[in-house]
Amino acid sequence: MQAIEDLPTPSVLVDLDVLEKNVRAMQDRARSAGVKLRPHAKTHKSPEVARLQLSAGASGLTLAKTSEAEVFAALGFDDVFLGYPVFGADKARRLLVLADKVRLAVGVDNLEGARSLGGVFHAAGRRLPVRLKIDCGYHRVGVPPEMAVETARRIADVPGLEFAGVFTHGGQGYAGRTPEEVAEAGHHEGRVVAETADAIRAAGLPVDEVSLGSTPTVRSAISESGITECRPGTYVYNDFSQVQLGSAKLEDCAMTVVATIVSAPAADRAVCDAGSKTLSSDPLRPAGAGHGRILGRDSRIARLSEEHGVIGVEPGESFRVGERVRILPNHACIVSNLHDRLVGVRGGRVEGQITVAARGCVQ
Amino acid sequence: MQAIEDLPTPSVLVDLDVLEKNVRAMQDRARSAGVKLRPHAKTHKSPEVARLQLSAGASGLTLAKTSEAEVFAALGFDDVFLGYPVFGADKARRLLVLADKVRLAVGVDNLEGARSLGGVFHAAGRRLPVRLKIDCGYHRVGVPPEMAVETARRIADVPGLEFAGVFTHGGQGYAGRTPEEVAEAGHHEGRVVAETADAIRAAGLPVDEVSLGSTPTVRSAISESGITECRPGTYVYNDFSQVQLGSAKLEDCAMTVVATIVSAPAADRAVCDAGSKTLSSDPLRPAGAGHGRILGRDSRIARLSEEHGVIGVEPGESFRVGERVRILPNHACIVSNLHDRLVGVRGGRVEGQITVAARGCVQ
Repeated sequence: MQAIEDLPTPSVLVDLDVLEKNVRAMQDRARSAGVKLRPHAKTHKSPEVARLQLSAGASGLTLAKTSEAEVFAALGFDDVFLGYPVFGADKARRLLVLADKVRLAVGVDNLEGARSLGGVFHAAGRRLPVRLKIDCGYHRVGVPPEMAVETARRIADVPGLEFAGVFTHGGQGYAGRTPEEVAEAGHHEGRVVAETADAIRAAGLPVDEVSLGSTPTVRSAISESGITECRPGTYVYNDFSQVQLGSAKLEDCAMTVVATIVSAPAADRAVCDAGSKTLSSDPLRPAGAGHGRILGRDSRIARLSEEHGVIGVEPGESFRVGERVRILPNHACIVSNLHDRLVGVRGGRVEGQITVAARGCVQ
Repeated sequence: MQAIEDLPTPSVLVDLDVLEKNVRAMQDRARSAGVKLRPHAKTHKSPEVARLQLSAGASGLTLAKTSEAEVFAALGFDDVFLGYPVFGADKARRLLVLADKVRLAVGVDNLEGARSLGGVFHAAGRRLPVRLKIDCGYHRVGVPPEMAVETARRIADVPGLEFAGVFTHGGQGYAGRTPEEVAEAGHHEGRVVAETADAIRAAGLPVDEVSLGSTPTVRSAISESGITECRPGTYVYNDFSQVQLGSAKLEDCAMTVVATIVSAPAADRAVCDAGSKTLSSDPLRPAGAGHGRILGRDSRIARLSEEHGVIGVEPGESFRVGERVRILPNHACIVSNLHDRLVGVRGGRVEGQITVAARGCVQ
């Protein structure tokens, strides 16, 4: 087996021991809370990791885009929730094909979108299970809780659709400055979606699934009552943002980038061969400087070009040309999306590859 | 032929008329200045666009990473300069294979890197042409001008290498707040690299190529005397950053993204299906807010998730679910790197595809 030291740089590594531990730990957490785990596969986009999650007990996969579901369906995965407000007859026709292969549900948050999907399914004599997205405070997509009952009623009346539940995403947890703020975002997320589900039920509609999730908020969110499912994604790999948020420790981080110092033109500047094409330009969350953490060093990657990571060398540290560094990325999901395959390692040796089969699926 | 309106969204479009005009215009500019144009292919990573450039008169291609050169060599391109300080015997062995297929030159900016390449070529009884990178003020890689003669001497003495010239990149032009500042960065870039070349020649070394470039600075840089080659990249597509910098007009921008509004949950918020996986998180340069410009609108994409572009809707504007928008990205090169293929369009109709053959080549 190849040693990490012999890999070409930059390479994206996944420590398989840590990955497997993370998969088990989240499954145990969901099981203890009595909720299903339907992990968001956007973090890995990989059949190998998805199989690990399902083997551990995950109930299915969450994805965002129709094309991602097509890739996973072609690989034999058979239970997918698209947690995204899919719009349009063209997408609906693809969903109709998918619905023959997989147990499928799709997110909606508005009547126009719902009708665009329902029209195609109704014409085919089919019904597409849909879940209504609730905005629990992230203010991205989703209906405000006070509009949920009325919107649910109107969506449930759309021919070709089957009202199947509610879901939310407490993305505002990523803005939490302390572990307490992050946890409180999760509690709020759980309460809002559960209360909204109750209100919709009180109006006479069935709400089978009450779903929420994000890696930082899931722990507190699933401690609220009335939740049936959670959908965290990043926990499989974790990243520097999760460490900053307090939702992972350094030893829980499975994904790192190995890079080589290619230039050290000044005492206060060294340059490695991992730039934004490797690490992405995504910022550290909730806030902070730098483009990933260089393990074992205080110096930071101060700026990125596409192929250059420019390190601001701290006093007392130095980097020599040819030296290899390991970098913990700011945001694991986007790093996955930049690469066709990651390198699975265990104990310093290469054990296999993780195929990013659904990389680049944006449609 | 398919209409743009029938494409699935999000899709990345390239207006072929604009692309072809941009290719001709830059070639004309280089020809008028009496310098060769060796465009940086990182912007497109595409054989179709590279062939356009070479047909128009480009002298060869610039690339950064060894793996990019391998892709282009396999596609039949035969003249490549890697404008990057390549390090290591593993890369050198790949360059040795490449050197049998293409006319190859490689950047160096330090003795350790130079020796790591020279060792492999010398052992094979070959010589690799190298060009010394000069730091003209961008402070990324490259030797300061005052160290150039000594470094050039030492690199020229490395067995297995052939000293072939100097190159620089006035990336600081991207920080220019006015067209005058950008132009002055280019003049400075040209003067520094030409004077450095003269100093190296005065020390008895041949300097065949004196190369520089970046889309914003190239116009003024090649007006300086003593320049033999320029290497702009972004000019083929242009982007919102180039418009901000004054180096392109809106009508010079060939690349746009077509996206669909999938949710409009509040009067001041609409969400389209192009997120950071489509547009990248790269900021606007030299500065400014937003993640690309929505053509024909004042509203901006205020924040991105991986699959969501969250538009802050300006008073007086509105977006309805299902509506399509066209977005001019902040940074074209990174958008190319996120997609396997772009859609070539002419006059509102789809004419073909642009293959991003060297997408993701970071090693």
